[in-house]
Amino acid sequence: MPLAVVLIDTRNPLNIGAVARVMSNFGFFDLRLVGPYEVAHQEAVSAVGAGDLLRNAPVFPTVAEAVADCSLVVGATGLGHRVFKHRLYRLERGTRLLRRHLQTAPAALLFGSEKFGLANEDCAHCHWLTHIPARAGHDSMNLAQAVAVCLYELIRSPAAARSEPLAAAQAPGDALERLTLLLEEVLQASGHTDYSKTTGADVNTHQLVRRLNLTARDASILSGMLRQVLWAIRSRNR
Amino acid sequence: MPLAVVLIDTRNPLNIGAVARVMSNFGFFDLRLVGPYEVAHQEAVSAVGAGDLLRNAPVFPTVAEAVADCSLVVGATGLGHRVFKHRLYRLERGTRLLRRHLQTAPAALLFGSEKFGLANEDCAHCHWLTHIPARAGHDSMNLAQAVAVCLYELIRSPAAARSEPLAAAQAPGDALERLTLLLEEVLQASGHTDYSKTTGADVNTHQLVRRLNLTARDASILSGMLRQVLWAIRSRNR
Repeated sequence: MPLAVVLIDTRNPLNIGAVARVMSNFGFFDLRLVGPYEVAHQEAVSAVGAGDLLRNAPVFPTVAEAVADCSLVVGATGLGHRVFKHRLYRLERGTRLLRRHLQTAPAALLFGSEKFGLANEDCAHCHWLTHIPARAGHDSMNLAQAVAVCLYELIRSPAAARSEPLAAAQAPGDALERLTLLLEEVLQASGHTDYSKTTGADVNTHQLVRRLNLTARDASILSGMLRQVLWAIRSRNR
Repeated sequence: MPLAVVLIDTRNPLNIGAVARVMSNFGFFDLRLVGPYEVAHQEAVSAVGAGDLLRNAPVFPTVAEAVADCSLVVGATGLGHRVFKHRLYRLERGTRLLRRHLQTAPAALLFGSEKFGLANEDCAHCHWLTHIPARAGHDSMNLAQAVAVCLYELIRSPAAARSEPLAAAQAPGDALERLTLLLEEVLQASGHTDYSKTTGADVNTHQLVRRLNLTARDASILSGMLRQVLWAIRSRNR
């Protein structure tokens, strides 16, 4: 997505580095710096592990120059005690608007300094503002964590909330049935349950096995364990 | 929500501090540490700004003891190149399951060390795993940023994606109408448009003003500007 992340007056090299890292994690590669503390910038760029993204990040003297090619400029801010003249959207809503814009045109997301956040003169370049819904009593977030959350909201997928797990497929019916019958053989042989006499016992065993919600792999492992136990019981009884 | 955030073998005091901070930001207060690097733990606890949350965080010798009261244990992991025996859910899906559990019972969310992530023996205490959907080419995330994203996904509100902005209400119809008529007066008086002759000119002015998508406050500010301009034009023409 053609999103520029613009850091204004950042003081801490660790924050610049952490922002670059999470941008790479989430597939954003356009980092721009406005007036960073010179030492912080140099330390960040020369840090071990600083990627191309950070080394290539351009430094602009003003916000206006940093966002010159962006047709939407959004400021990320805490609520604090300020009165905002701009429209201020909760992140979920703001991100939806931002994502829509990014489908056709470049945009910039602005973050202010660690200590003061976005200044009024930075907000003056924004079309609107967005805030992360943090707790009213403590909504001042770490810069790099705030960037992480904003970018995550951009890449998260509502559809994925209904997705199946990646690994570990559910055990199919025949595997569960084999396991159930093996369990019944073991319980019969060990004297725990006499399935020929106890009414409903086999239904109970079947239900128990289904409640375990086993993966294919684990159903197979448990079946192996039961086969060995069955063999041990029968050998002893010989 | 009765969620315990469990950090295992954390080495960097800054990460412990940043995790505590974002927990407070998002309203989670149950931080537990398992075998933290002793120096890291002491530095984090004595750091300026370390809140009660961090000072009160209990240290456990084993994962088993840290999660003893939790009826669901979830491990947060990158995909890396490992083969997982557990079910592994994308964060959006995993969080939905976790949130459902938290409505009735306590749960723990486990994070491994900065360098190695969750070890196999840590995963052994988990019911299932969840992963943040980072880029395949670079999915190793900073610990404190990973915690920030996981907690944000828990507190974010799908309904908020359709919410109205907090500040800056839209201008009501009468304010826009007053502004439009003032603008027409200014354009007529300045000689830009002769509304008595140009067909459709007033429709165009009306549409332009609506496209500006003004807040109530800005409609009022613009009206004030236009009144002054109108006064200036008329004074000069006297």
